[in-house]
Amino acid sequence: MSLSSFIPPQRTLMGPGPSDVSARVLSALARPTIGHLDPLFVSMMDEVKALLQYAFQTKNEFTIALSAPGSAGMEACFVNLITPEDTVVVCRNGVFGARMIENVERIGAKCVIVDGTWGRAVDAQQLERKLQKHPEARFVAFVHAETSTGALSDAKALCEIAKAHNCLTIVDAVTSLGGVELAVDEWQIDAVYSGSQKCLSCVPGISPISFSEQAVEVIKNRKSPVPSWFLDQSLVMAYWSGEGKRAYHHTAPVNSLYALHEALLILKEEGLENSWARHKAQHQKLATGLANLGLEFIVPAAERLPQLNAVTIPKGIDDAKVRAYLLNEYNLEIGAGLGAFAGEAWRIGLMGHAARSENVALCLAALKDALAKFG
Amino acid sequence: MSLSSFIPPQRTLMGPGPSDVSARVLSALARPTIGHLDPLFVSMMDEVKALLQYAFQTKNEFTIALSAPGSAGMEACFVNLITPEDTVVVCRNGVFGARMIENVERIGAKCVIVDGTWGRAVDAQQLERKLQKHPEARFVAFVHAETSTGALSDAKALCEIAKAHNCLTIVDAVTSLGGVELAVDEWQIDAVYSGSQKCLSCVPGISPISFSEQAVEVIKNRKSPVPSWFLDQSLVMAYWSGEGKRAYHHTAPVNSLYALHEALLILKEEGLENSWARHKAQHQKLATGLANLGLEFIVPAAERLPQLNAVTIPKGIDDAKVRAYLLNEYNLEIGAGLGAFAGEAWRIGLMGHAARSENVALCLAALKDALAKFG
Repeated sequence: MSLSSFIPPQRTLMGPGPSDVSARVLSALARPTIGHLDPLFVSMMDEVKALLQYAFQTKNEFTIALSAPGSAGMEACFVNLITPEDTVVVCRNGVFGARMIENVERIGAKCVIVDGTWGRAVDAQQLERKLQKHPEARFVAFVHAETSTGALSDAKALCEIAKAHNCLTIVDAVTSLGGVELAVDEWQIDAVYSGSQKCLSCVPGISPISFSEQAVEVIKNRKSPVPSWFLDQSLVMAYWSGEGKRAYHHTAPVNSLYALHEALLILKEEGLENSWARHKAQHQKLATGLANLGLEFIVPAAERLPQLNAVTIPKGIDDAKVRAYLLNEYNLEIGAGLGAFAGEAWRIGLMGHAARSENVALCLAALKDALAKFG
Repeated sequence: MSLSSFIPPQRTLMGPGPSDVSARVLSALARPTIGHLDPLFVSMMDEVKALLQYAFQTKNEFTIALSAPGSAGMEACFVNLITPEDTVVVCRNGVFGARMIENVERIGAKCVIVDGTWGRAVDAQQLERKLQKHPEARFVAFVHAETSTGALSDAKALCEIAKAHNCLTIVDAVTSLGGVELAVDEWQIDAVYSGSQKCLSCVPGISPISFSEQAVEVIKNRKSPVPSWFLDQSLVMAYWSGEGKRAYHHTAPVNSLYALHEALLILKEEGLENSWARHKAQHQKLATGLANLGLEFIVPAAERLPQLNAVTIPKGIDDAKVRAYLLNEYNLEIGAGLGAFAGEAWRIGLMGHAARSENVALCLAALKDALAKFG
């Protein structure tokens, strides 16, 4: 075994995440490690909480950064709220809706599936009909921004329907947070999770989550313990709680939380609305350029995510060769298709720090070159 | 909300972890983020695996870095191997043995407890007697290095007994890996987990784990799915496996893995035996100095961990005041007591990069000052 330090190249990350991490966030990441119970660190955690409340547009007291990736954030929402006796309606229009179903099934709860079309938003009328047929449902879960297809669903409308049927709502905001409008309180979202490595442009590994008061009540009133000790939020609450002494649960990922603090601060400085507008403007530039290259979007314009652009790979073009060429020749990463779209689509991310004119210009120029070369 | 970048002070970390992270590891951490499926990143993961095999002293093919803290590593070992039908013998001589019991109980398996004394090693004869009484036991679990007390148990002897009773062994090596001898293959450990932030002196948030072939067989032959999707190692294997195409499971914590790679490389350069010897030598210096200050160890000399030194707080000394003074005046963190030892002990860590003469000298001088001031 002959090994040396790993020196990664400087890539431009325009896949489905991780997105480009700015020098400012990397610099925060590398600051000296301090203890996870150090009073200064605890104060910083309070600031992370306040910044997350801003990003999620919520007053939820229980708003924290989970010490693991977004898929653990998803699981935390499901295993804390749902017990085997519950019925959960899950909307599936891509890979991450399917993962929600996996979560419900592993809990042993009853899962009612609203099966949608890949590449389309979740159909609100279809949800309404399913809920009419299943008055026993207690939860509705869906993905706000499907990273596997680039479709944006109308979270406000879906939550309204869920609430009319007395259901609590669980929303995947992994790719939406910071990139498109998300209003947790106004839209009546009871449990929401995201990821650090998408439109927040922080390093991967952390999952911001937030629970409404009603969701916290459900957790507090559980009769059986949460199957996962690590994800048991009644224990985690005691560490993140602002009142009194912090109770040790696990060692927080100190440096990653420095980075998240900085990334959230950058978002706050820019302003949420400005960030949404920037994502939209760069998306429009990219979309025009892609059309000029003859590439077609999978998702209809009205349901498109600005931060995740899925286009059909033209016939006769070798997917793997093009992506390898972009990576090796231009240090540019775009995403492969996932699930039903594997080998059939490219996913071009414009997330957070990556949503910049220079990235759009590079991506269009490099793709033009690659399509000519391999077309 | 008026916020600015968080600039932590430069502390000397001599608590129970996180330990001091070297500039070299912090610098690796801050290198540009690349994609978690980038061929260069995948090669680096192969190197992390090889370096972990070296650190654990194992040829186990299934040796990976879990994308979450050590407590998730613990849970991964338990939930993947154990089903509700199993009987598990757990040795408890501190907080982390107790946490193992929590894990077994949440799975719904039968837990047989070998209850030991806080501050002492696990008693091998007691384990032998328990196993004779419980021939139905399939697993034996214990903590190699109890971070809550500073006691080192004889992992080799305990595993030998477990194997004589046809049990698989689950070992907590969170604080032992890199600091004291650990030979996973030779000692017949079937599942082992550690943490990045102890004697590896990496940033917190990652848990190295390893499963023997026999343990992998148990996982493959499960009749019911693992309750946790995120921790289901049959899915994670497909991402870490060297054969063929990597299957996406979750987004790996790219930058934290750069740091772990660098920390493991430092360990490899020093050599495991040299690292163990350094921890022992610094411990002896510290122990002599602490005795000169009139401080008494909780653990008998033969069962002491060099990297975690628990001493009784002298009568009349205000625990919180002393620790706050060390932190504010010397930027020195030592650990409070945990569980049964809360308010009664200090835990002085000499882990990884922190096990240096300058740290020992600082700690003894600062403690002398504090004891005089608050005595």
